[in-house]
Amino acid sequence: MPVVRVEWLAGRSRAQKQELSEVFTQEMSRIAGCAPEHTQIVFTDVERSDWAVGGVLNDTPKG
Amino acid sequence: MPVVRVEWLAGRSRAQKQELSEVFTQEMSRIAGCAPEHTQIVFTDVERSDWAVGGVLNDTPKG
Amino acid sequence: MPVVRVEWLAGRSRAQKQELSEVFTQEMSRIAGCAPEHTQIVFTDVERSDWAVGGVLNDTPKG
Amino acid sequence: MPVVRVEWLAGRSRAQKQELSEVFTQEMSRIAGCAPEHTQIVFTDVERSDWAVGGVLNDTPKG
Amino acid sequence: MPVVRVEWLAGRSRAQKQELSEVFTQEMSRIAGCAPEHTQIVFTDVERSDWAVGGVLNDTPKG
Amino acid sequence: MPVVRVEWLAGRSRAQKQELSEVFTQEMSRIAGCAPEHTQIVFTDVERSDWAVGGVLNDTPKG
Repeated sequence: MPVVRVEWLAGRSRAQKQELSEVFTQEMSRIAGCAPEHTQIVFTDVERSDWAVGGVLNDTPKG
Repeated sequence: MPVVRVEWLAGRSRAQKQELSEVFTQEMSRIAGCAPEHTQIVFTDVERSDWAVGGVLNDTPKG
Repeated sequence: MPVVRVEWLAGRSRAQKQELSEVFTQEMSRIAGCAPEHTQIVFTDVERSDWAVGGVLNDTPKG
Repeated sequence: MPVVRVEWLAGRSRAQKQELSEVFTQEMSRIAGCAPEHTQIVFTDVERSDWAVGGVLNDTPKG
Repeated sequence: MPVVRVEWLAGRSRAQKQELSEVFTQEMSRIAGCAPEHTQIVFTDVERSDWAVGGVLNDTPKG
Repeated sequence: MPVVRVEWLAGRSRAQKQELSEVFTQEMSRIAGCAPEHTQIVFTDVERSDWAVGGVLNDTPKG
């Protein structure tokens, strides 16, 4: 039943998402006893222009 | 003031979202006494390649 | 696979959550074809002192 | 470490997001003592057809 | 209609939340034209033992 | 900058959360190249009475 959300900057590939999904699901099972078929992983790709750190959007050119 | 979020695989139509919004809002009113004009419903369509169950992304062909 | 989150002010009873869960799950099935056993509903009770509308926390006495 | 999410109707400009990011980050620092470089702001633009208020999607023509 | 969520470590006071709510709501109005009465701010206090940075939970004593 | 949220039924220990945090952070680094110090993991423990599957809250006795 666990839901794991991964929110990160857009740009990762489907292969990276697939590998992370596998590993996270296995580790949820090994460490916390969650049945793999009950673990869901949802990826949210965020554009650089939608994510600010320190008050500066991530698509801002570095001076 | 309630906020209801529906997170599901992309592919449902606008008509389905409209009908769900109506029904959910009515039921929030009937069951929990929430004024309809204060209930908000937000839909998030997730691509199959962004949602894994059992460690497998949903756009993986079944073998 | 759908996940429905209901975020509202704390104070509703278990019976209200149970009834909403049933109805929302049935309507997700009827309107959008989601298998009931795949629909999850998660409730988040928010304290009045953690929710502001119009810049005023909800536990503020009305003058 | 704080994460601030702004979920609103799509349509605001990058300049508005940048200005909000700056101000929110400064105010988080001034009011709550959060180091600016630890504050993250994430914007989620929601389409009108994905957001209902009072049981009516926001792209519904007003009668 | 905007919903702003502030997710941070537990420990801030009600007064800090009230002041942030006011300022954020004013700035949403000034910068993005959101009517103050439509802006909602929701605070989520997270315990140190529920938030890891760099793979280390925040209640870990520093060595 | 990635934020990983783990939403699951309450009951897991601090040690399980610490181990998961370490492993998830390492795998985010290995698979997706995310600097460990930029990866944050937030755990949300949900009570059984706040999570329904198939229209039934998780604290319902099985008949």
